[in-house]
Amino acid sequence: MDRSEVLDIIKKNVQRLSVFDTEEYQYIPLHQKSSPSILAVREIMDLLRKVIFPGFFGSEHEAQSESIQYYTGVNLEKIYDLLHKQVCNSLCFDSEKCCETDNLASGITVAFINDIPRIKHFLSTDVKAILDGDPAVNSVSEIIFSYPAIRAILHQRVAHALYNLEVPVLPRIITEIAHSETGIDIHPGAQIGKYFSIDHGTGVVIGQTTIIGDHVRLYQGVTLGARNFTYDDNGLPMDVPRHPIIEDGVVIYSNSSILGRITIGKNSIIGGNIWLTHDVPPNSKILQSRAVFDK
Amino acid sequence: MDRSEVLDIIKKNVQRLSVFDTEEYQYIPLHQKSSPSILAVREIMDLLRKVIFPGFFGSEHEAQSESIQYYTGVNLEKIYDLLHKQVCNSLCFDSEKCCETDNLASGITVAFINDIPRIKHFLSTDVKAILDGDPAVNSVSEIIFSYPAIRAILHQRVAHALYNLEVPVLPRIITEIAHSETGIDIHPGAQIGKYFSIDHGTGVVIGQTTIIGDHVRLYQGVTLGARNFTYDDNGLPMDVPRHPIIEDGVVIYSNSSILGRITIGKNSIIGGNIWLTHDVPPNSKILQSRAVFDK
Amino acid sequence: MDRSEVLDIIKKNVQRLSVFDTEEYQYIPLHQKSSPSILAVREIMDLLRKVIFPGFFGSEHEAQSESIQYYTGVNLEKIYDLLHKQVCNSLCFDSEKCCETDNLASGITVAFINDIPRIKHFLSTDVKAILDGDPAVNSVSEIIFSYPAIRAILHQRVAHALYNLEVPVLPRIITEIAHSETGIDIHPGAQIGKYFSIDHGTGVVIGQTTIIGDHVRLYQGVTLGARNFTYDDNGLPMDVPRHPIIEDGVVIYSNSSILGRITIGKNSIIGGNIWLTHDVPPNSKILQSRAVFDK
Amino acid sequence: MDRSEVLDIIKKNVQRLSVFDTEEYQYIPLHQKSSPSILAVREIMDLLRKVIFPGFFGSEHEAQSESIQYYTGVNLEKIYDLLHKQVCNSLCFDSEKCCETDNLASGITVAFINDIPRIKHFLSTDVKAILDGDPAVNSVSEIIFSYPAIRAILHQRVAHALYNLEVPVLPRIITEIAHSETGIDIHPGAQIGKYFSIDHGTGVVIGQTTIIGDHVRLYQGVTLGARNFTYDDNGLPMDVPRHPIIEDGVVIYSNSSILGRITIGKNSIIGGNIWLTHDVPPNSKILQSRAVFDK
Amino acid sequence: MDRSEVLDIIKKNVQRLSVFDTEEYQYIPLHQKSSPSILAVREIMDLLRKVIFPGFFGSEHEAQSESIQYYTGVNLEKIYDLLHKQVCNSLCFDSEKCCETDNLASGITVAFINDIPRIKHFLSTDVKAILDGDPAVNSVSEIIFSYPAIRAILHQRVAHALYNLEVPVLPRIITEIAHSETGIDIHPGAQIGKYFSIDHGTGVVIGQTTIIGDHVRLYQGVTLGARNFTYDDNGLPMDVPRHPIIEDGVVIYSNSSILGRITIGKNSIIGGNIWLTHDVPPNSKILQSRAVFDK
Amino acid sequence: MDRSEVLDIIKKNVQRLSVFDTEEYQYIPLHQKSSPSILAVREIMDLLRKVIFPGFFGSEHEAQSESIQYYTGVNLEKIYDLLHKQVCNSLCFDSEKCCETDNLASGITVAFINDIPRIKHFLSTDVKAILDGDPAVNSVSEIIFSYPAIRAILHQRVAHALYNLEVPVLPRIITEIAHSETGIDIHPGAQIGKYFSIDHGTGVVIGQTTIIGDHVRLYQGVTLGARNFTYDDNGLPMDVPRHPIIEDGVVIYSNSSILGRITIGKNSIIGGNIWLTHDVPPNSKILQSRAVFDK
Repeated sequence: MDRSEVLDIIKKNVQRLSVFDTEEYQYIPLHQKSSPSILAVREIMDLLRKVIFPGFFGSEHEAQSESIQYYTGVNLEKIYDLLHKQVCNSLCFDSEKCCETDNLASGITVAFINDIPRIKHFLSTDVKAILDGDPAVNSVSEIIFSYPAIRAILHQRVAHALYNLEVPVLPRIITEIAHSETGIDIHPGAQIGKYFSIDHGTGVVIGQTTIIGDHVRLYQGVTLGARNFTYDDNGLPMDVPRHPIIEDGVVIYSNSSILGRITIGKNSIIGGNIWLTHDVPPNSKILQSRAVFDK
Repeated sequence: MDRSEVLDIIKKNVQRLSVFDTEEYQYIPLHQKSSPSILAVREIMDLLRKVIFPGFFGSEHEAQSESIQYYTGVNLEKIYDLLHKQVCNSLCFDSEKCCETDNLASGITVAFINDIPRIKHFLSTDVKAILDGDPAVNSVSEIIFSYPAIRAILHQRVAHALYNLEVPVLPRIITEIAHSETGIDIHPGAQIGKYFSIDHGTGVVIGQTTIIGDHVRLYQGVTLGARNFTYDDNGLPMDVPRHPIIEDGVVIYSNSSILGRITIGKNSIIGGNIWLTHDVPPNSKILQSRAVFDK
Repeated sequence: MDRSEVLDIIKKNVQRLSVFDTEEYQYIPLHQKSSPSILAVREIMDLLRKVIFPGFFGSEHEAQSESIQYYTGVNLEKIYDLLHKQVCNSLCFDSEKCCETDNLASGITVAFINDIPRIKHFLSTDVKAILDGDPAVNSVSEIIFSYPAIRAILHQRVAHALYNLEVPVLPRIITEIAHSETGIDIHPGAQIGKYFSIDHGTGVVIGQTTIIGDHVRLYQGVTLGARNFTYDDNGLPMDVPRHPIIEDGVVIYSNSSILGRITIGKNSIIGGNIWLTHDVPPNSKILQSRAVFDK
Repeated sequence: MDRSEVLDIIKKNVQRLSVFDTEEYQYIPLHQKSSPSILAVREIMDLLRKVIFPGFFGSEHEAQSESIQYYTGVNLEKIYDLLHKQVCNSLCFDSEKCCETDNLASGITVAFINDIPRIKHFLSTDVKAILDGDPAVNSVSEIIFSYPAIRAILHQRVAHALYNLEVPVLPRIITEIAHSETGIDIHPGAQIGKYFSIDHGTGVVIGQTTIIGDHVRLYQGVTLGARNFTYDDNGLPMDVPRHPIIEDGVVIYSNSSILGRITIGKNSIIGGNIWLTHDVPPNSKILQSRAVFDK
Repeated sequence: MDRSEVLDIIKKNVQRLSVFDTEEYQYIPLHQKSSPSILAVREIMDLLRKVIFPGFFGSEHEAQSESIQYYTGVNLEKIYDLLHKQVCNSLCFDSEKCCETDNLASGITVAFINDIPRIKHFLSTDVKAILDGDPAVNSVSEIIFSYPAIRAILHQRVAHALYNLEVPVLPRIITEIAHSETGIDIHPGAQIGKYFSIDHGTGVVIGQTTIIGDHVRLYQGVTLGARNFTYDDNGLPMDVPRHPIIEDGVVIYSNSSILGRITIGKNSIIGGNIWLTHDVPPNSKILQSRAVFDK
Repeated sequence: MDRSEVLDIIKKNVQRLSVFDTEEYQYIPLHQKSSPSILAVREIMDLLRKVIFPGFFGSEHEAQSESIQYYTGVNLEKIYDLLHKQVCNSLCFDSEKCCETDNLASGITVAFINDIPRIKHFLSTDVKAILDGDPAVNSVSEIIFSYPAIRAILHQRVAHALYNLEVPVLPRIITEIAHSETGIDIHPGAQIGKYFSIDHGTGVVIGQTTIIGDHVRLYQGVTLGARNFTYDDNGLPMDVPRHPIIEDGVVIYSNSSILGRITIGKNSIIGGNIWLTHDVPPNSKILQSRAVFDK
């Protein structure tokens, strides 16, 4: 097949793919606005990691007490500039208020900057929670440097702060980056207390309206999900509270699913591979029925 | 230990590792052909995303109706060139027909280019299906831009088109890239209808001979797998239909396993954490037995 | 908000974030040592892949029998240099013996280099095991080139060798890279025999003290985990044998959890979605109870 | 010297270098505006080369008559966007009209886009002039692809177009890039006719108010410079016509200097190593006095 | 100016620039063949530098006598592959023999590989010549590592070897890279003996048919050029011997021009700023007339 | 030619090129020490440009008076670390004192850091000198941002500081980078006063023992060189004062050569294309003899 035949076929398909008012592609709009930049979001998250865990992810000198302020100053200003731009892009991404975004975005970004010390405090408690729960761990440093749970929780805590500031799209991008890297999928809307830990983590799903207390620990494959949807008049599922409330001190073992707006009472222990759709009183201990031998 | 001692040890191991006719490494052949390039495959997929979802992943100007044809033209030609090379490499990768690949490859690549509008149409219906099923979603744009399911399905639909054109290895590479990024593992051979959606997705496995109808929705951790293998005379497992048929309108909740060449009838609902190895009639609703309290 | 207001807020937060003797961040130390480099570890693993699977991941010429020694020589020396540096950084990362690391590190690195042929031999058997167990596979080359299980097992076998050489942190980094890319989370401490295979793999978790025999096959979502922790006098969980022993020839199907220091006897088959916390004699076959119809 | 002593010294120098109202550094202002981006200017020039010499600097397919329009379309739009931004930055770089730049910049950029075909026409004549004058040349393609004179003249013709549109700074940046790469230093203000050629070129200097006719050829080391400056009341040199007028058909051999607002008449030949500061009538032939033997 | 007006103007110019059969651009052909890759040529030259000056430009370990062969082996094979491709592209670049290039190219490339030891020998003598002539030099290592003359001569000696093998275009590209970096412009055709040195170098021009003996030294700004051209029947300049012959032991000081097919006899010294167009007997000493005082 | 023939030839040449005790390559030693890194030197120079000209070469925010200290702090610490390493490498590069370099290097690097404010002060005067001498200039900002003379002088002033601290090789590398980019070749040893300016600059050469006063201006192609060498007993040229002394206020026009340890008296003007080898009293004005007409 010679080149000009190939080019003919390309031309024909260019025509077929450049049509936008056709039923064939009706749910794929012609997107004519700036999209947020995944690359920039990754850079923001890297800078936040450096600011929150000083010395771990940059050069060793960045953590000298004499020079730490220089690095933190430069990094915070970079975070401000990068984040401000991404907040702008996100506000425009699929709304009509695009024109007023610049002011709005700088207010939001400043509010976020003011929230970083609190996020750092929460992460400090998460590090402690992991330390207390994993016999294979050797040190606080190893947790901070190499545990996927720390990355997933950092991303969610940052995304949640932006979610509360009503930034669209961006929080989801932030949690999806962690989801892709760790297999842990926590919605930015989920409210999570202090001393939170996840072990292994792959397959964990935590839904948008979930509320989690302090000192909660999850294992791999745990779903905190919705059971039923409420539909609106257009037949679309409604965004109402539909995920569980997990009270302080609860532990949920691997691959269990807790579904619906139910409450798991304080200090309960939920075994592995459990499918749970009703409330559980405090201090409960729930285990699976035995497997059947079929030898 | 000084450098020349180190180099001695390196030399000795160079000898040990440069032997190829030994039983010790008998299943690791000396591979002397071009391998497909993962990097090139990633680039092809990025270009396809730009062509299929215009404006989302390039600059905003690429989606102006006045200039969209320029971009689509350039991108399609790049896709042609990159894909043609990778199809060649794949045909050579582990066969003897390597010599005739150039013509064969250009026929295959042109056939694929002609298939892109259909793939785009199918993805348009997938976007709609996700929109209808997720109360947390804000817009079609957010789905296209940030949902891992879209990436996983795009990769599978592209891989499936190449699988049908009998390209070896390459389809698998394409789905493995999505598997790595999303935790969703769909074999290129699986046949999937329109309006397909997956929520969360980590841990989903869909086997090679699976057949899925229209309007099917899956949740995280669902396996559509094989139950038993049939072995050939050499004791190797045979490649026969061995995965389920999921009819139109079926929903399967998280972490359930549907195994073997069974049929799940139209509009059935399969609850979470189910282990299912037999046919199910249309409109069935299957739930797990309750968990046992052990308080 | 004008720039100097923004800078004021940045300054204030620089102050708040540059405090290190506060309870607020007490579990986030000021890290003042070199950290291992993730980038360098990735490069080491890429070089090891080239050395162990010659011709697959470099250019085709790297596998000519006439020139293979040049490439292996250069790659082994690069591995030595990169690894030596990372072993140094790891020894310093959170210990006090930092000063003696250089000699120690070169001894460790040389020992590792001497172990590469054994690792290659083990991987050769793993390739064979995958070939024998997957009806969808087309060739040994496809397995080596595109199966995530090969990547996960390669990383664990390398990490385990370093773990046995008592290198801190680094082994964990190596397995976490594979965990992130494949969803397969195998602790560096796990002892794994020959002919090991994992199918699909997402969600697999294998704990630190697990012992796995030869010819074992696992499917996606399998957990080989701990059941209870033993706590020391400080209330911290102790690092004692607490994960299962899986004997030769065992197959464990998808999403099952085997927990605690129990033994699964030779050639047993464990079905999917099983929750197992007790010993199982050789040649057992364990299946789940049937799902309940609720039509 | 330990780290904290080093940091002390750094701190002291940070103080000394962060002072801006001091006589010590009085000619180095605190620059608080965006600077043009050298990187972006390089990218603009690369795109212009592709548009003007289609097929030479991109892939071979960019020059297929069937697809050339796609590439030209995409490249022109990229040139527009990149150049618009750099024109904005340049207008702000050292003026007070920064606020009105956006509109102004888009007018300027559009005017430049409209001028590209004329620039291409002029370069076409330059290629011809080089072909006619160099016995070592093999083809038009070799000239376009590898002659430094083409790069230097392309940069100057582009810079001159922007200079005429009154863009500050940017034209100079464009010619300095060529100066650095070729050793040919032509001021953006110089007016240059068609069929212009330079051989070898290193050391050529052509001043701001120079006027060059058609069919002029220069050799390496030729200076077309100023002789005397006129000073204004502040003692600063004035920007008045002060460089030579070189009429049609003139050839100037290597290392000669033509200085001052003098006129070299049509078809004159100026030998090498000449120092010339007065008018020359048409058809003159000027040679150096002989070297002196001192054997 | 809104976007669609801009796009209109772009469209109009796309039309104007996509015309190829017009007198306006008659000397700019539509180039429809592969061009050589500047990037690949740079890589080839970097590898040749490593092979010829082992240990200077790679890591220090590349020069251990125990491992040098690995590095040389890998580098020579890379040189072969990269150069073979560039020779192919060059043979096609502007000729009709493109179809037979593959065989031709591999013969040429092998011949070049065989010539590398000779090139290394010549460069060894050049290093010695620089050492003997520069009072500011500290060591042989400093010359090899940082003197621009070494780079310019290396490029010319490599280009000359390819020029003798009748490779088009590529030799010129190689010398132009050195010209751009050093300001030294030596035509690939020039024949240069051993122990050749250039001091400072900027502005040196050496023409295509120049013949230079052993132990010749040049200073910055020296031109060894043509004086008159001989024209063929089409009025194009003919490629005949037209540059000087510089015999053994000659020194030419800065900014002098030696023009035409003249001979500078053995061991002559030519002073600076000389313009010379006639033969000079051996052992001559030529100086400029004194400058005139005009005080 | 098939691959194994090619590999045979490569092997043979690997042998020929891996010999080091042969007369053939006697001036190319086997270099077994670390070389300085050109890349690192470029980075150091970029950081110094940012520190000395704040706001011009980084982002605009780096020059806010509120945040400038953060950036200067971070940049100075990076300069320290990078330079310290390069000083080490340079001390080892060709000497035997390699073992004591670490302490020596940190003392040198600290001394250099302390010298940066002085270098900045000198450059401030150079900017002023260019401003006063070029009628085409528009602003101080344009000079700092785009004039090659500023780059060449910055590099020389930095190199000279390191030269005075007796760092080998590194100063030469720094000036050669500027030489390559600007065509201006100033030896690190040259002593240069304040308010120094060069116009255009290509071809300027300033030798090692040159002494230049304040307010000196040079034009392109000027050589301040040696005339005769003094040879030592081994026949090697000696490093004695052999370049001119240029007193305050001297102007030297294009392409003139001032050679030997002569003195050009205060405020003298040397015309273009002059060849000067004797002292000149203050306030002299020297012009070339007229060109000869040969019409």
